[in-house]
Amino acid sequence: MRVNAVDTIRFLAADMVQSANSGHPGMPMGAAPMAWVLFSRHLRHDPSQPDWPDRDRFVLSAGHGSALQYALLHLFGYDLTLDDLRGFRQLGSRTPGHPEYGDTPGVEATTGPLGQGIAMAVGMALAERMYAARFPGLVDHRTWAIAGDGCLMEGISHEAASLAGHLGLGRLTVLWDDNRITIDGAVDRSCSDDQSARFRAYGWHVVEVSDGTDLEAIDRALTEAVADPRPSLVAVRTVIGHGAPDVAGTSAAHGSPLGADRLAEAKRRAGWPDEAFVVPEDVRAACEQYATAGRAARFVWEERLAALRESDPARAAEWQRRQRGDLPADVDEEFWAHLATTLPDAPTATRQSSRAVLAALTEALPELVGGSADLAGSTGTDAGTVPVRRGDYGGARIDFGIRELAMAAVLNGIALHGGFRCFGSTFLVFADYLRPALRLSALMRQPVIQVLTHDSVAVGEDGPTHQPVEHLDSLRIIPNVRVLRPADAGETAEAWRCALGATDGPTVLALSRQALPPLDGAHTTPGWLARDGFRVARASADPDVDLLASGSEVDLALAAAEVLAGEGLTVRVVSVPWRERFEVRRDRLGSARATVAVEAGSTLGWRHLADAVVGVDRFGASGAGSAVRDHVGLTVAAVADAARTALRSAAPSP
Amino acid sequence: MRVNAVDTIRFLAADMVQSANSGHPGMPMGAAPMAWVLFSRHLRHDPSQPDWPDRDRFVLSAGHGSALQYALLHLFGYDLTLDDLRGFRQLGSRTPGHPEYGDTPGVEATTGPLGQGIAMAVGMALAERMYAARFPGLVDHRTWAIAGDGCLMEGISHEAASLAGHLGLGRLTVLWDDNRITIDGAVDRSCSDDQSARFRAYGWHVVEVSDGTDLEAIDRALTEAVADPRPSLVAVRTVIGHGAPDVAGTSAAHGSPLGADRLAEAKRRAGWPDEAFVVPEDVRAACEQYATAGRAARFVWEERLAALRESDPARAAEWQRRQRGDLPADVDEEFWAHLATTLPDAPTATRQSSRAVLAALTEALPELVGGSADLAGSTGTDAGTVPVRRGDYGGARIDFGIRELAMAAVLNGIALHGGFRCFGSTFLVFADYLRPALRLSALMRQPVIQVLTHDSVAVGEDGPTHQPVEHLDSLRIIPNVRVLRPADAGETAEAWRCALGATDGPTVLALSRQALPPLDGAHTTPGWLARDGFRVARASADPDVDLLASGSEVDLALAAAEVLAGEGLTVRVVSVPWRERFEVRRDRLGSARATVAVEAGSTLGWRHLADAVVGVDRFGASGAGSAVRDHVGLTVAAVADAARTALRSAAPSP
Repeated sequence: MRVNAVDTIRFLAADMVQSANSGHPGMPMGAAPMAWVLFSRHLRHDPSQPDWPDRDRFVLSAGHGSALQYALLHLFGYDLTLDDLRGFRQLGSRTPGHPEYGDTPGVEATTGPLGQGIAMAVGMALAERMYAARFPGLVDHRTWAIAGDGCLMEGISHEAASLAGHLGLGRLTVLWDDNRITIDGAVDRSCSDDQSARFRAYGWHVVEVSDGTDLEAIDRALTEAVADPRPSLVAVRTVIGHGAPDVAGTSAAHGSPLGADRLAEAKRRAGWPDEAFVVPEDVRAACEQYATAGRAARFVWEERLAALRESDPARAAEWQRRQRGDLPADVDEEFWAHLATTLPDAPTATRQSSRAVLAALTEALPELVGGSADLAGSTGTDAGTVPVRRGDYGGARIDFGIRELAMAAVLNGIALHGGFRCFGSTFLVFADYLRPALRLSALMRQPVIQVLTHDSVAVGEDGPTHQPVEHLDSLRIIPNVRVLRPADAGETAEAWRCALGATDGPTVLALSRQALPPLDGAHTTPGWLARDGFRVARASADPDVDLLASGSEVDLALAAAEVLAGEGLTVRVVSVPWRERFEVRRDRLGSARATVAVEAGSTLGWRHLADAVVGVDRFGASGAGSAVRDHVGLTVAAVADAARTALRSAAPSP
Repeated sequence: MRVNAVDTIRFLAADMVQSANSGHPGMPMGAAPMAWVLFSRHLRHDPSQPDWPDRDRFVLSAGHGSALQYALLHLFGYDLTLDDLRGFRQLGSRTPGHPEYGDTPGVEATTGPLGQGIAMAVGMALAERMYAARFPGLVDHRTWAIAGDGCLMEGISHEAASLAGHLGLGRLTVLWDDNRITIDGAVDRSCSDDQSARFRAYGWHVVEVSDGTDLEAIDRALTEAVADPRPSLVAVRTVIGHGAPDVAGTSAAHGSPLGADRLAEAKRRAGWPDEAFVVPEDVRAACEQYATAGRAARFVWEERLAALRESDPARAAEWQRRQRGDLPADVDEEFWAHLATTLPDAPTATRQSSRAVLAALTEALPELVGGSADLAGSTGTDAGTVPVRRGDYGGARIDFGIRELAMAAVLNGIALHGGFRCFGSTFLVFADYLRPALRLSALMRQPVIQVLTHDSVAVGEDGPTHQPVEHLDSLRIIPNVRVLRPADAGETAEAWRCALGATDGPTVLALSRQALPPLDGAHTTPGWLARDGFRVARASADPDVDLLASGSEVDLALAAAEVLAGEGLTVRVVSVPWRERFEVRRDRLGSARATVAVEAGSTLGWRHLADAVVGVDRFGASGAGSAVRDHVGLTVAAVADAARTALRSAAPSP
């Protein structure tokens, strides 16, 4: 039966690919034995309730092998029918080309961009330990991932594995599908790593399985992995496209359907019926039994939760609140109003204002965890919290190390795990390093918050490698990403409020290195940022000119407004911390005769919103921040000039 | 004297930081001994001719320690005065906050974004081997880098070191400044890697130096590194901020000036004069001697070049041509005209057209080298070239492995080294992975070509993780990056021509997965793309509507034009492969009553150019490419509708 089960998975996957005439049959056919052993003997899950909070997590980091996961989910009784499998890779199906979080019950993470699955699994394993430290009776599960050579070659595998080894995440097991084949050919064309030695250097436990079809050997290796207190790499030697005539063991089995004839021959050799989508009765029955065992495990857990409800209803309610992702009841209007009164009223960098807000939030939101890629002090994310450490996961601060990409992917894993709100931080210019994982936050609509500071050429002396220019717009155009750039302390608190209120995607807070003066009326209409995206920083009933600005340039715009007012013009200044929302709500503003936008970054995204844009379409330079701003043309005179020129070209006032 | 020299470097660096009141004194003070040993005893260089082609290359991967490098360059007689050092971090100085390629003689690469220096050094070391295989008598040098903990924690260090180990780049030595301190505190807050074991797992040779002030031990280690045929990591245990009272060995020495009092006390303890920018005579004299020895080495090399000029003038001329970066004389109008006649005239994916162009170029341009991050077949960069292998570097194809970021940084190293034109390739969506290094290509104005295929949601079944949406605009807004998106085979050849003609920055070729029909007149006016950025794909003398489109959407625009023409409208279709150039030259077009832009990506960057934009501001989906295009609204009907609506709002024709 076991061999039957493995062949069932193999041929379901190959049939899916054949029926779609598109996809990756090789990985599922090679990795079916390890996946079967994992799902049948080790993974603790209840297919009838895929969101059971204390389930084991499984991430298919080698996401191109999606057919493997879909076959397993179907066999084990997840809500995924044979017809769903027949719809593989068709528009609107529940079986997309790569596993997509939200599309398929049992898929814990969107994978495909290689290496990120490992890092998200690290995040889930870390979240499990942190959640267990907070709710010891209710959290006690493992995290599993299957990764391929591509995952291990990507740099993020280094960052994530290093962090997991450092933190001693012993409940994490990564199965490496060691098939020695990549898309372009043999792995040894491009890689000679001793992966076992490499992972041992990270503090991992490594087990090798020399025959990836030996179910008992795989089982022993997984049992050993579970027993070891370190994170484990189980290196399983496999043959890509196992059983496929001619192409098994070659890259030809990787990314194309086997073809009807070759698939038929593979089935004939395996003694398999010459039909598509065959599931033998004994295999289905066995899977049902395993699923029943999983359900029983869940019932035991439900009893524990019920007992907690009995013994400590407040604690149980708190658990439920965190599971739902609701904010605490006392983080209300009054909380935000009080917070506003505590903010600095002298000129302050918004990264420092954010630090003050974060200190208050850390106290009020016990589920808020996060940290920095080694810039906690600089980004204002070091506010006196206790660090998470190997063996002691009760802290709220995560020292991610100089690993921006893994940080963002680990945060995705924490968010996907549930029970936490989370944030990361680095300099805005290094958003480039974490971008691939931020895109997955956005695609999976995870409310991860990125605190990205030093948000313009005003960074100064560190020079162009540390001065963001194109970054604001490049982040704004990732779908579902909210980019907020507050202009003072009050706006910074509003931005945090807006970020915490968002549950449908990530938020970037772009914050200044340099001090910014408090603006009038910053604290007057709580909730304005989430609603309108903008507010009027200098009012005018019937303006000649509107100056749109964000962040540090609002102050510049106000100074230019003074100059223009001195020339008899009426000028309105509008602070636009959230440009995309402003575009939706702009009609509430009314219009001026001319509009100028000012932002210390690319002009591209403002051009359709204004008659002229003062911005930065070149790299910065090393020098004092104010000198660099002048040097690239971010000056009061430039803004005033742009306004005068725009007015001259504008239609005369009626 | 030796100790004197080390102290000279330490205090020059600390004085620079103190005088700028900004910068990083700790790294230079700790790493001064290893840098001194390297520069005085191992680095083969001639400060009077910093661009000597056969010099050793040195990259300060820990770029925040720039003061260390400036001190060394000054002492060894590069054209960098004490006044230059006094101008540290001031606007317009030759001593910016991080080393900037082009600003300072002797600085081989812009560094600061951590880890990239190691990868660029790998690229230089690879270029040296490849160049030596082509010009054995003229190329025979080494590559050295100094890296910090941050460099080793970044994922790119994994990708680059793994590739260097695989390729056996034995002339590369990385000195690791093992000071156990990061910005936020002790390294062991966030990292427990056994770095020596890790690098051995990559096939590197590792030497450890337990006392980073022991000049003889450092010397022995570097000698051992030179003797070993593998790339070497020399792990040197240091103390950050060596000699600075209170802060030595702590993160307080990392990123802030020591302060006048602490610096004075450090000098007192070292028996150093209480003045700034002191260079003892014996140190200066010693450095001059070393420089003279370097110059002698260059003279020997010049003699070899002169001998080649004598014995084989054609070969010597070819060397000079490659050094200058000129294209071969026979890559001329005739070459391009002939190439145009060989291109497919049936519908063909532009990635396939590019493959045909690349095959011709590979033959015509012996200096053209490049490869793929394991997508050579898919991106059309596999055109029958011989791979570079350990011990055999005569090939032109580099199998980068699944390492997009290292690929881009290694290409920067190859370009910086000189003697080659180079390209990389992956899917456009994975531009996110290589973005940090592409930004450095742009900042350093290196003419690296990135062949990025599968350039829209038309990728189809692989789904949203593999479908670029925001990528075209996000690349266009990086300063100095040229993004070209050709619409057919002829435009693809033009795009390659434009890319090869560019020497002031990188070029991205965005190419389709799906077949695109040949357009009329595609081959008629060679050179149009570099000149105008656009061409008319369907002419109309006095158009009601202009349809602007790029790449695969030109065909869509042509189909919409047919529909609109059937309604009696005159429609012009403009193919815009290079939007930024089009913006400069748009006045040559004349205007239509209404303009609609169409591109399978973010609409943001087209909005100021058109009355309406048909684009994609959402993630794609898994399904057949054509179905996904329809699903996201990229249809003939949508374009025609947008044109009708735009016309209705337009001013009536005169």
